[in-house]
Amino acid sequence: MIRKALITGGAGFIGSHLAKRLLSENYEVTVLDNLFTGTKSNIYDLLDNRRFTFILHDVTQPFWGQFDEIYNLACPASPIHYQRNPVETIKTSFIGMMNVLELALKTKAKVLHTSTSEIYGDPLEHPQRESYWGNVNTIGTRSCYDEGKRAAETLARDYHCEYGVDVRMVRIFNTYGPNMHPQDGRVISNFIMQTLRGEPITIYGDGSQTRSFQYVDDLVEAIRRYMEVDGKALADFCAAHRLLTPVINTGNPEEYTIRELAERVIAALPEKDGRIVYRPLPQDDPRRRKPDIALATELLGWKPVVPLSVGLSKTIEYFRTFGKN
Amino acid sequence: MIRKALITGGAGFIGSHLAKRLLSENYEVTVLDNLFTGTKSNIYDLLDNRRFTFILHDVTQPFWGQFDEIYNLACPASPIHYQRNPVETIKTSFIGMMNVLELALKTKAKVLHTSTSEIYGDPLEHPQRESYWGNVNTIGTRSCYDEGKRAAETLARDYHCEYGVDVRMVRIFNTYGPNMHPQDGRVISNFIMQTLRGEPITIYGDGSQTRSFQYVDDLVEAIRRYMEVDGKALADFCAAHRLLTPVINTGNPEEYTIRELAERVIAALPEKDGRIVYRPLPQDDPRRRKPDIALATELLGWKPVVPLSVGLSKTIEYFRTFGKN
Repeated sequence: MIRKALITGGAGFIGSHLAKRLLSENYEVTVLDNLFTGTKSNIYDLLDNRRFTFILHDVTQPFWGQFDEIYNLACPASPIHYQRNPVETIKTSFIGMMNVLELALKTKAKVLHTSTSEIYGDPLEHPQRESYWGNVNTIGTRSCYDEGKRAAETLARDYHCEYGVDVRMVRIFNTYGPNMHPQDGRVISNFIMQTLRGEPITIYGDGSQTRSFQYVDDLVEAIRRYMEVDGKALADFCAAHRLLTPVINTGNPEEYTIRELAERVIAALPEKDGRIVYRPLPQDDPRRRKPDIALATELLGWKPVVPLSVGLSKTIEYFRTFGKN
Repeated sequence: MIRKALITGGAGFIGSHLAKRLLSENYEVTVLDNLFTGTKSNIYDLLDNRRFTFILHDVTQPFWGQFDEIYNLACPASPIHYQRNPVETIKTSFIGMMNVLELALKTKAKVLHTSTSEIYGDPLEHPQRESYWGNVNTIGTRSCYDEGKRAAETLARDYHCEYGVDVRMVRIFNTYGPNMHPQDGRVISNFIMQTLRGEPITIYGDGSQTRSFQYVDDLVEAIRRYMEVDGKALADFCAAHRLLTPVINTGNPEEYTIRELAERVIAALPEKDGRIVYRPLPQDDPRRRKPDIALATELLGWKPVVPLSVGLSKTIEYFRTFGKN
């Protein structure tokens, strides 16, 4: 029987890749998106597929539908976007999760919820394991996202433990690839867009700070394997790791310096004659985060496999054509 | 002109004291309560006052009214209560706060929100200052309360910074007094109830762990002074302390060992021949918390003034008559 999936935020960066992947696995796919940061162009090539449905809807308003699986991806994720309207951001996270869980409860759908490495805040432990509780300010400029995502995890835990909803959470670390928003203010899109425009790449600080980058295909592979894990096996895994609710990190633990990333972008665009300029490091910038992915590897037999060089090429190619449209 | 106040959770322990205080200051007082942990008996003696109105209503459902001041106290606060229905607990905290803030935004009411020392979780810093970010598990058995209250702070911060709602937050540490729920599972009510019933007092561990206890009148005094602070003075205070939103701790920094508390309860009830029995310490018990109240003292000229002996006597007297009704 054909399986039905709902993806909230399915016109966004990660959601659009997941939609494509599920269609390729013969799912009927419904994407629900308010197009705040998602864009129709991310799903243009899916619209002709008769197994695909797009619903323009905001996840903070209740919705209904019979699905086997719900992937909850709806929430602006880059500071430049989620700080535009902090109240809407935290509502999207919390009330969106609530609407997803209510639907799952009533229809017995399985839920995959995308949480984030931001729930670890400015971590005092490196690398971050799932058992780390995080270091987050409740009343700062990033709180609408961080605390919204934290409360969404709690809500998922409560529906899982109290009402038996099958909910699986991933905490996603820095991810990149085609369909990224070109103005999301993140380092990869910034560097590529600057070089494509013939501007110098701006590095804050001396560029020795490190980041890790997960290519979107690796993430989608982890998500799909996770959703396929048998319920009994998942319960055993959680019991063994003393998790009240399934949660795993996904990310790429390989670290690169910001300077190295800039040099790779420049090398990949030789015709652009790229350069680097250095600016002072802003105060709240240097959050180093590196995932511990031992749990994901144990549960899913998964590790990221796409090298930065390959992922960067595909992302650059995307931004190049994007710039031309 | 007569001032109008709304107290959500106004039939609860702290809310009922605040209602009485506001009536004594000539306010018109409306109490909104779903009576989940609050009880009508807490406000029996207020019902004949024509300036008092009681509304049986759940704070997670929108409500309307024109008030000058809203005191948001609605949320079960002891683990034994808030764990009974974790989903409702976190909804009460988050959606209740949202409904309060929406009402305040539309009616230009001032808001006093009661947050909690629980947002500090298992603190890694002692004593806790307002600048401490806390150490909280997102997916544990206490998360519904801790994360719900954290997200409520964030929401308050966002309505304050984005929409200009006048919101003032107190983080309340361990508080006791008449109208406490006799079955709330807290140490003071436990010890008094056990002794009144002629049972031995149960101490977990050797009783050398410390706690601090704030008498409810001290808290209400802080709340009232806080609400009276002039907006400009409050803004200056926040700027000086780099707070995006006003937040202060209230609690009593004086620490007592659990054994000392037990001995004081026994001494206060000489006719009951009280005894102590010792039991092993449960794993998640020993959260030591001690408020740093420097900010409250600076802003309000406030310090707790009710000695434990006086507060205990009044509380014992309350439980004694409570047991007889």
